[in-house]
Amino acid sequence: MNELKGEQILLRIFIGESDKHSGMPLYESIVHTLHREKTSGVTVLRGISGFGPKSLVHTSHILRLSQDLPIIIEIVDTPDNIDRILPIIEPMVEDGLITKENVQVVYYGVKNR
Amino acid sequence: MNELKGEQILLRIFIGESDKHSGMPLYESIVHTLHREKTSGVTVLRGISGFGPKSLVHTSHILRLSQDLPIIIEIVDTPDNIDRILPIIEPMVEDGLITKENVQVVYYGVKNR
Amino acid sequence: MNELKGEQILLRIFIGESDKHSGMPLYESIVHTLHREKTSGVTVLRGISGFGPKSLVHTSHILRLSQDLPIIIEIVDTPDNIDRILPIIEPMVEDGLITKENVQVVYYGVKNR
Repeated sequence: MNELKGEQILLRIFIGESDKHSGMPLYESIVHTLHREKTSGVTVLRGISGFGPKSLVHTSHILRLSQDLPIIIEIVDTPDNIDRILPIIEPMVEDGLITKENVQVVYYGVKNR
Repeated sequence: MNELKGEQILLRIFIGESDKHSGMPLYESIVHTLHREKTSGVTVLRGISGFGPKSLVHTSHILRLSQDLPIIIEIVDTPDNIDRILPIIEPMVEDGLITKENVQVVYYGVKNR
Repeated sequence: MNELKGEQILLRIFIGESDKHSGMPLYESIVHTLHREKTSGVTVLRGISGFGPKSLVHTSHILRLSQDLPIIIEIVDTPDNIDRILPIIEPMVEDGLITKENVQVVYYGVKNR
């Protein structure tokens, strides 16, 4: 396990649940890529409504048949690791948004018991 | 589609799922308003537990009958667009929290294929 | 209700849904602790996939039996209140990540009607 303390980067990737990459859901493909690249951790959130650059309203309530709900993938890692994975991840994203934010890591790890 | 690059604003609106506005769920009313105002995109997340300014604990586990789970609405847009939509959105929110954060947009768009 | 305006702190706690504390789910234990400590509000989000410091891939799709999905607990409060609650919360977290971000509170409260 890597150390991760102090000022780091929060990378957030906003895509759609129905986006595909190499025949699998894009978000699963990104999670597997990030796991292979040994990022410190990943969290995938699924929204209940929203719209993106294509400006479609995706709503689980209104459009019950739609599976294209918004997905946010979050990664907190060092600036160096974020710079390393971005050129791998960005070409995988077609319709979406990627943002970086500064965060301070207060705790990261697995306690010994 | 607008361009969206570099330093922008992440606006986050924390409300309850049962909040209403003009006879419809507040979060749907906000999404429709943001769509009409042509913001760059919106993501609506529903939490599984939480409490807000009224200090009630909303928990899907404990209070199975409650539908008042927390909702977060996220918008990334230019400072000018955020300043333009805030005076429209803020009066719609009664019990809640609205925050702004600085974010760096790394990618936004729809790739040509 | 407390006032909460201007520059404040967003605290985010990334844990697993199956983490336990004192015989109950850790995230519920943290929500109850934060409620007792009178933080301004809490939102608990459950992800659909992810991995953490232990580097396991948790996916609701792939591992249908797993309940160890990622949880994010979010708190927006004053720097003083965050400094006060962190020494209470951090020892409760074993496998996870805790981050702090600067946020600007635009609106917080319950409107009088």
